[in-house]
Amino acid sequence: MKFTVLNQDSGTAARTGRLELAHGVVDTPCFMPVGTQATVKSVTPEELEEVGAQMILANTYHLGLRPGIEIVKNAGGLHSFMHWDRPILTDSGGYQVFSLADLREITEEGVVFRDHIAGSLHTLTPAKSIEIQQALGADVIMAFDECPPYPSDRDYTCQSLDLTLQWAARSRKSHTDGRQVLFGIVQGGLHRDLRKKSVEGLEEIGFAGYGIGGLSVGEPREIMYELAEYTAGLLPAEKPRYLMGTGTPDELVSQIAFGVDMFDCTVPTRYGRNGSVFTEKGKMVVRNAGFKDDHRPLEEGCGCYACRNYTRAYIRHLFNTGEILAHRLATIHNLFFYQELMRNARRAIEEGNYSAFEKKFLEGFKPTSDRSDRR
Amino acid sequence: MKFTVLNQDSGTAARTGRLELAHGVVDTPCFMPVGTQATVKSVTPEELEEVGAQMILANTYHLGLRPGIEIVKNAGGLHSFMHWDRPILTDSGGYQVFSLADLREITEEGVVFRDHIAGSLHTLTPAKSIEIQQALGADVIMAFDECPPYPSDRDYTCQSLDLTLQWAARSRKSHTDGRQVLFGIVQGGLHRDLRKKSVEGLEEIGFAGYGIGGLSVGEPREIMYELAEYTAGLLPAEKPRYLMGTGTPDELVSQIAFGVDMFDCTVPTRYGRNGSVFTEKGKMVVRNAGFKDDHRPLEEGCGCYACRNYTRAYIRHLFNTGEILAHRLATIHNLFFYQELMRNARRAIEEGNYSAFEKKFLEGFKPTSDRSDRR
Repeated sequence: MKFTVLNQDSGTAARTGRLELAHGVVDTPCFMPVGTQATVKSVTPEELEEVGAQMILANTYHLGLRPGIEIVKNAGGLHSFMHWDRPILTDSGGYQVFSLADLREITEEGVVFRDHIAGSLHTLTPAKSIEIQQALGADVIMAFDECPPYPSDRDYTCQSLDLTLQWAARSRKSHTDGRQVLFGIVQGGLHRDLRKKSVEGLEEIGFAGYGIGGLSVGEPREIMYELAEYTAGLLPAEKPRYLMGTGTPDELVSQIAFGVDMFDCTVPTRYGRNGSVFTEKGKMVVRNAGFKDDHRPLEEGCGCYACRNYTRAYIRHLFNTGEILAHRLATIHNLFFYQELMRNARRAIEEGNYSAFEKKFLEGFKPTSDRSDRR
Repeated sequence: MKFTVLNQDSGTAARTGRLELAHGVVDTPCFMPVGTQATVKSVTPEELEEVGAQMILANTYHLGLRPGIEIVKNAGGLHSFMHWDRPILTDSGGYQVFSLADLREITEEGVVFRDHIAGSLHTLTPAKSIEIQQALGADVIMAFDECPPYPSDRDYTCQSLDLTLQWAARSRKSHTDGRQVLFGIVQGGLHRDLRKKSVEGLEEIGFAGYGIGGLSVGEPREIMYELAEYTAGLLPAEKPRYLMGTGTPDELVSQIAFGVDMFDCTVPTRYGRNGSVFTEKGKMVVRNAGFKDDHRPLEEGCGCYACRNYTRAYIRHLFNTGEILAHRLATIHNLFFYQELMRNARRAIEEGNYSAFEKKFLEGFKPTSDRSDRR
C-alpha cells in the first residue's frame, strides 16, 4: 500500500489523496458502497464501476456465516467469487457480533456468540477474524474491535478500550499476508481522553491506516461531528483515515472537512431500496404518489443511468407495483450521487476551495431526520 | 407491418420469417419476454437487448390499473415510459380479467369486474381495450377475447366463442391507429370444429396476424400440442401465428415444428426469480445446497452475462441470502437461454434441418413437471 496526500485544503483539514492498493488505485476522499454479503444490494460490479466506485466494503461476520470461508477460498477469494476486481475492504466482524448476534461471553480471548441466522454457537477472536479476512483476500482488512453501544458509561468504555487495544495487538500479530494492509480501529466512546489513549495505543502497535469507530451509533449529530473532528486531528497525517459507517450526504461533506479520507455507509443503497433518492436539495421520497405523473428525471442534470433514461413517474410506478427494477434504479442514482459528491469534494479541495463548497452544499441540502448506521 | 416467410422447413411446418413493425424488425420464430407492468421483472431494456430480445409483451389489464393510461400517455406512450425502443405487443386484458379479477357480469357489451388490487369496479369492452392499447402505443395489439377456463363443457365453449367473435369484430372496428397492427385471437377450447369456426370467423373479419389462445390453461400437454398443431395448420401461411402464454423450452421447440412464429411466457423470468435455471439438460434448481461449492458457470459454454462472470456457488449464495442480484442473474441466464434457443431453431430451419434439431434437443432436455402459464 502506498498513500499519498496530494492536496491539503487551506481553510479546513480536508485533503485529497491517492491510495494505492493490491487491486488498484483509490482517489480520496472516497465513498465505499457496502457489499455486506459479497454483493452491493441490487447492482452489478459493472454498474458500480459506471457510477465511479473504486472500492467497496464487505463483511467478515456475514461472509463467515454464509457462504463460509471455505467456499470463498475455493472460489479463489472474494474478488473472484463476486466478480469485482477493484479494491475491497473487509470489516473485522467486531461491530456485527456486538450489534447483530446474541452475545454469550466476552473475554480477553475473544467473543462467544450465537449468530442471527441459525443461532449456532461461534467463537470469534482477533486471530480468527484476521484469518478469515486473509482468506477473503480484501485489500484492506480491519483489526477486531469492540464497539461500545451508545450510551455507555465511562467505566465500561474504558474497559472496552483496553480490550480493543489488546485485540488490536493480537490482530496485528496475526496479520501475515503482505498483499493486504491492516487498519486499526480507534474507539474510546465519546470521551476525548479515551480517544487520545486509543490513537496512541494503536500508533504504538503500528497500522497502515486507521478506522474511526464507535461513532454514528445513536449519539447526537453534533457530538459525532465533534468527536470525528477531534479524532481525525489526532491521527497521523500521512496515513489514511476511515470514518466507519457514516453517513448521509451532508454528514460526509462536513466530515471531509475534518480530514477524513474514507467512508462507507448503507444509506445510499438502503434508502434507494426504500424509495428515497438524494438530490442536491436533500432526500426525495420518489415512492410517494405525488410523483406519479411527474415526467422529469429524479434530478435534473444528473448523469446517472437512472436519470438519463427514466422518469420519476416510471420509477414511482415501479415502486408502487413492487418491481425489482425500482430498487436498482434508485440504488444506482444514490450511489452515483455519493460518488459525484466525492468527485466534487476532491475538485474543491484541489482548488483550495473546500469551505465554500461545503457551505454551498449544506445551504441547499435539507438534512434528513433519520440517522446513518454502520453495517 | 410486413411479414415475410423466409424459409419453410421441409420435414415439419416450422418456418422462419421477418416481421417488420413500427419499432423495428423481429426475426421469427421469436420469444417475447413478459413485461407485465412495463418492466421485464428485474432486468433493464439494455439487458434485454444484450440477450437478444427483439420484442416484448406488456399487459393492458395491469397497466390500465397501474399506473393508468393517462400517465403512460403523458409519458409519450409505453415505449418512452419504460425506455424500450424495440417492438412491443400488448395483450388485450381479456385473459387477465378472466383469470385475475373478480367477475361481476359478462355481456355482449363486455365485462364488469372488480380488480385484484383495490377491488374497484371496472368495465372492459372491446372498444375500451383497443382504446387503451392504442394509448399505450404497442406495435402489435390484441383483440379482446374470452379465454374459457379448463375444463369447460362444449356448450359454454360454443357460447364463449360466439362472444369472442363478436368482440373480435368490435375490436377490429375500434382499431384506428395505422402504426399499430391488430391480431385476432383464436379460441374454441379443445374442440377442433370450434377452433376451425374461430379461425374462419376471424379471417372473415380480417386481422394482420393471429394469436392462438385458450391453450396452456391446464389441459394435458398432449392435448395442447394436438390443438396447437391443428390450429396453426388452419391459419393462413402468410400471416404471423402467435401461440399465447407458452411455454417451457421443450414446449417451444415442439411448437415451432407446428409453424408457430411467436411466443411469450413468464416461465424464464418467473423460474429465474425462484432459483431455477435452464440448461440443455433441463431445469436446474441452482438455489439448492448441492451447488454451494460448485464453481462452474450455470451452464458450461453459455455466453450470457451470468455465465461469463459468475459461478453456481455465487448465485446459490445470492439466493440463499435473499439478494436481488440472484434474481437478475438467473433471469438473464434464462432469457438468454430462450433467445439462444430461438436463434438455434431459426438456423436449423434455414438449413432445412428442424426435425433433427428438435429430436436432439428433446432427447437431451428433461421436461419439467410444472406447467407454463399465460399472464
